[in-house]
Amino acid sequence: MNNLNKLHLSGYGRDFLRTWDKSADHLKATLAVAQTLRDWHRKGISPKVFSSSMAVSIFRDKSTRTKYSYSAAANLLGLEIEDLDEKKSQIAHGETIMETVNMLSFLTRTIGIRDDIFLGLGHSYMTEVALAADWGYANGVLDQRPSVINLQCDEDHPTQSLSDLLHLSNYFGGLDKLRGKNLTMSWAYSPSYGKPLSVPQGIIALLPRFGINVTLSYPKGYNLIPEIESLATREAKKDGSTFRITHDMREAFIDADIVYPKSWASYAVMSRRTELLKKNYVKGLEHLEGEALAQNAKHKDWTCTEKLMKQTRNGNALYMHCLPADISGVSCKEGEVDAKVFEKYKKQTYTQAGYKPYIIAAMILLTQFGEKTPKILRSIGQRNQSVFNF
Amino acid sequence: MNNLNKLHLSGYGRDFLRTWDKSADHLKATLAVAQTLRDWHRKGISPKVFSSSMAVSIFRDKSTRTKYSYSAAANLLGLEIEDLDEKKSQIAHGETIMETVNMLSFLTRTIGIRDDIFLGLGHSYMTEVALAADWGYANGVLDQRPSVINLQCDEDHPTQSLSDLLHLSNYFGGLDKLRGKNLTMSWAYSPSYGKPLSVPQGIIALLPRFGINVTLSYPKGYNLIPEIESLATREAKKDGSTFRITHDMREAFIDADIVYPKSWASYAVMSRRTELLKKNYVKGLEHLEGEALAQNAKHKDWTCTEKLMKQTRNGNALYMHCLPADISGVSCKEGEVDAKVFEKYKKQTYTQAGYKPYIIAAMILLTQFGEKTPKILRSIGQRNQSVFNF
Amino acid sequence: MNNLNKLHLSGYGRDFLRTWDKSADHLKATLAVAQTLRDWHRKGISPKVFSSSMAVSIFRDKSTRTKYSYSAAANLLGLEIEDLDEKKSQIAHGETIMETVNMLSFLTRTIGIRDDIFLGLGHSYMTEVALAADWGYANGVLDQRPSVINLQCDEDHPTQSLSDLLHLSNYFGGLDKLRGKNLTMSWAYSPSYGKPLSVPQGIIALLPRFGINVTLSYPKGYNLIPEIESLATREAKKDGSTFRITHDMREAFIDADIVYPKSWASYAVMSRRTELLKKNYVKGLEHLEGEALAQNAKHKDWTCTEKLMKQTRNGNALYMHCLPADISGVSCKEGEVDAKVFEKYKKQTYTQAGYKPYIIAAMILLTQFGEKTPKILRSIGQRNQSVFNF
Repeated sequence: MNNLNKLHLSGYGRDFLRTWDKSADHLKATLAVAQTLRDWHRKGISPKVFSSSMAVSIFRDKSTRTKYSYSAAANLLGLEIEDLDEKKSQIAHGETIMETVNMLSFLTRTIGIRDDIFLGLGHSYMTEVALAADWGYANGVLDQRPSVINLQCDEDHPTQSLSDLLHLSNYFGGLDKLRGKNLTMSWAYSPSYGKPLSVPQGIIALLPRFGINVTLSYPKGYNLIPEIESLATREAKKDGSTFRITHDMREAFIDADIVYPKSWASYAVMSRRTELLKKNYVKGLEHLEGEALAQNAKHKDWTCTEKLMKQTRNGNALYMHCLPADISGVSCKEGEVDAKVFEKYKKQTYTQAGYKPYIIAAMILLTQFGEKTPKILRSIGQRNQSVFNF
Repeated sequence: MNNLNKLHLSGYGRDFLRTWDKSADHLKATLAVAQTLRDWHRKGISPKVFSSSMAVSIFRDKSTRTKYSYSAAANLLGLEIEDLDEKKSQIAHGETIMETVNMLSFLTRTIGIRDDIFLGLGHSYMTEVALAADWGYANGVLDQRPSVINLQCDEDHPTQSLSDLLHLSNYFGGLDKLRGKNLTMSWAYSPSYGKPLSVPQGIIALLPRFGINVTLSYPKGYNLIPEIESLATREAKKDGSTFRITHDMREAFIDADIVYPKSWASYAVMSRRTELLKKNYVKGLEHLEGEALAQNAKHKDWTCTEKLMKQTRNGNALYMHCLPADISGVSCKEGEVDAKVFEKYKKQTYTQAGYKPYIIAAMILLTQFGEKTPKILRSIGQRNQSVFNF
Repeated sequence: MNNLNKLHLSGYGRDFLRTWDKSADHLKATLAVAQTLRDWHRKGISPKVFSSSMAVSIFRDKSTRTKYSYSAAANLLGLEIEDLDEKKSQIAHGETIMETVNMLSFLTRTIGIRDDIFLGLGHSYMTEVALAADWGYANGVLDQRPSVINLQCDEDHPTQSLSDLLHLSNYFGGLDKLRGKNLTMSWAYSPSYGKPLSVPQGIIALLPRFGINVTLSYPKGYNLIPEIESLATREAKKDGSTFRITHDMREAFIDADIVYPKSWASYAVMSRRTELLKKNYVKGLEHLEGEALAQNAKHKDWTCTEKLMKQTRNGNALYMHCLPADISGVSCKEGEVDAKVFEKYKKQTYTQAGYKPYIIAAMILLTQFGEKTPKILRSIGQRNQSVFNF
């Protein structure tokens, strides 16, 4: 909280789409606000800042934890969820994004969106939503400008990567303690489905900016969006940390302080998926899903075993996962991680996930109130309102 | 607000099903309350009148903006939405309306319903819901009588037509400025689906009561429910305005101050749809949808072009639409309106849609509190509670 | 309210899964708190005890009235519903219960679950959810332990049976007036689907504990879970009431003070259903549903007629049903009850259903606050907050 005042918060912006659009100060502010909300919840203090208003959600892909986290964040601040079910709406009848966004924003403070399946589409959709909200606000159609919050797109998953960073900060004793730590973001085998690239992309783009040396490891063909790999290189160079790519999971684990083994679909599959979508070729999309899984199955040896974990720093690296993990012998026959490794770090991965509601709430506060946020938080802290109402 | 006191509000009734069941004073009160809530929202004043209680919604047809508007209205007043998903309920197992309504009303203040597809069914369903609520309240099953709010039926779409009227009132500088204005409600071509008749019916039944001369224009066979066309004639005569029907879109636009070009299914198609439903003939219903579109396709020249707009009063009539519009070259190849016309009036049609949450909230307040509404609003205005909670 | 203080409330527990896990004092406390909340609602007093936080719901079977009741209870106390749609979640991708529960509990006070279709699975699922919540709370993943509330499992339906008991208590003038009354829980014919056993099981396990003599009547083969029939016998013996089983509906109605005629699937069908599920044999499950209905159809004479009702005490027994009932000539051709009988008692069955929101709210309060509940209720009663906010 105290360090919030020292941060340069002007120009925070009205949306949170990608971490790389934000300054280091803005990211630190997001973490500081989230931590404050987290501490308050432990003490039973309510940060309700709205007495009414809506929080719209648009989920174009499945979600449990992010959906819950967004609902919980809205509730924490006093907003009411309205989930847009595009199948039950008239969007099927050709409604434009400009129109949908304005129609859903009359009394709305935030629009949270997940659109992560197709490369080149998710972020551009969110940008279009933001522009539509700009237009509505500038033209007096809307009384307030709702914040667009990225709940996972094709490029970034900022509510995840910032939860991860806050978890690391608390685990190692502060943001400054992360400098020089080695983190390995590795591909791992999964039999479940062709997963998005946004989690590893979010990690490699964000963590080098906080002094963490990042190793990205994957089988050939499983590269991420090339521009984001380049971005990671640039950010590391700027910050004095390192970013490197390897194709050997075993080697990548050596001396790691933190490991993040996780599956994603091959880049070739992801690229073709978008082409098929543009052609509206449903059968092709189903076929491609099968191909993605067959492709993955060639790399079943890319899995986080106890043996691999022993190669990490003191055999004791922190294991991370955005969840749900494909746990060998538990949620599938062969998956991303051995049951024993997962079990040992279960408390840690669950705690990691627990930051997300507060990260989202922090994003809403900062995008809605910008520089005024520290003052508002002080006022909330002083009023000391209980989550109980008796 | 001030003029609310001059209106005769007794007998407002417990439901809002059709504008023609309401006196002119009751309609003016709905507009005045809605405008007050709208002004308050601009100033950040919260009209929350309930500290808890439920707002039930039953959508038997797709909805984006009305669904959002109903949720936003509920939130504005402090009610919580419970959406009845009839597919996930036991209604499939033969539950009666009497029972469903009572089961959903124990802590409920309002039941919003959309049931607009089948002629002769929507309004009668809502009436049955209202009678069931009467029975439950009279027999002590319910502690309060929830208001039934029509969110579009087969006959009327009052939350739309009253939003439209409030928009016109603000656009032209007051309800009294509407007297003598010419409005053309015209059929227009749409490739999307066989749309309900309730929007044009709502317009022709309501606007002549406020001094507006209404021209209804459609290709032969696209008439509305005959009783409602007769009602429009009677209402116009009573009020000193005019109502006429023409089958020439071009002629209908001449000297219009306001145009409302919009698609609907042909009356014959609509009538047969209901017969097929009664026989539960699903294939027939699908076939009929195709027939409706083929029928529409014969009238592609019924579309709102820039050329047509030039024929209106000073070439500058206000274009209206309930949205979403089928915009030629944008949301479809050929549709209800040219892209340039739509774009010119986008701010206006979006603003028009923005009144709906406030119209619905006004209906809830007036059906729940009747004559006491002005006093309650004064008390809310005086307390001056912010939408912010800090 | 006053008698709450005399009850021994320690050890109420963090969940409400089955009435037979609770002491008589705990059950009486649930009824007393529910009655207080019901009285307050009549007077317009709000018992909102939470200023924010979530109430998660997981419905693995259809529900209207229990779903609404859970939502209304949450709203009454100030909690916000988050419904888990397992089809839209990542649970399909093999997520463990341990993980799902923790992911949905960060800001959650209660998890309500319906899982009633498969014998041997519903209660064990809820137990696993409770253990997962225990683990999360003990390990600091969760700041609070959410209460697990059984909204119908394979064994018990406690929100139903306690609503039924509270209804009986009010109908006959107090819990003590129920001692010595004869209640007949009878199987009845239904054409709709193979219904769960939990309602009759809940009734026979609960009511003998309050001095009611229970007769369970069903056609051979329609027995309930044997352990629960034995439990009913033991509880009756302990309390000095009686429990007996008969296979003659006519005889079972003689001298009954209360009758509860209701359909359920045969035990053999229910047992095979679980086996088929374990084999994931979908076609077999559909086939079995047909078999269940064919089996039922052999016993169409098991129906509650006016003639049968005449055999009850003074021809005037109280008719009960958990709703929706299959009413002959109304919701089906031949069903559980004659239309005239149902109509005569409609007000009573609807009133019976109306206790459920308050029973659920009472369970949430007592599982969250235990022994402190009476003090909290006194404080709420004193503050006397209106449901209106003006």
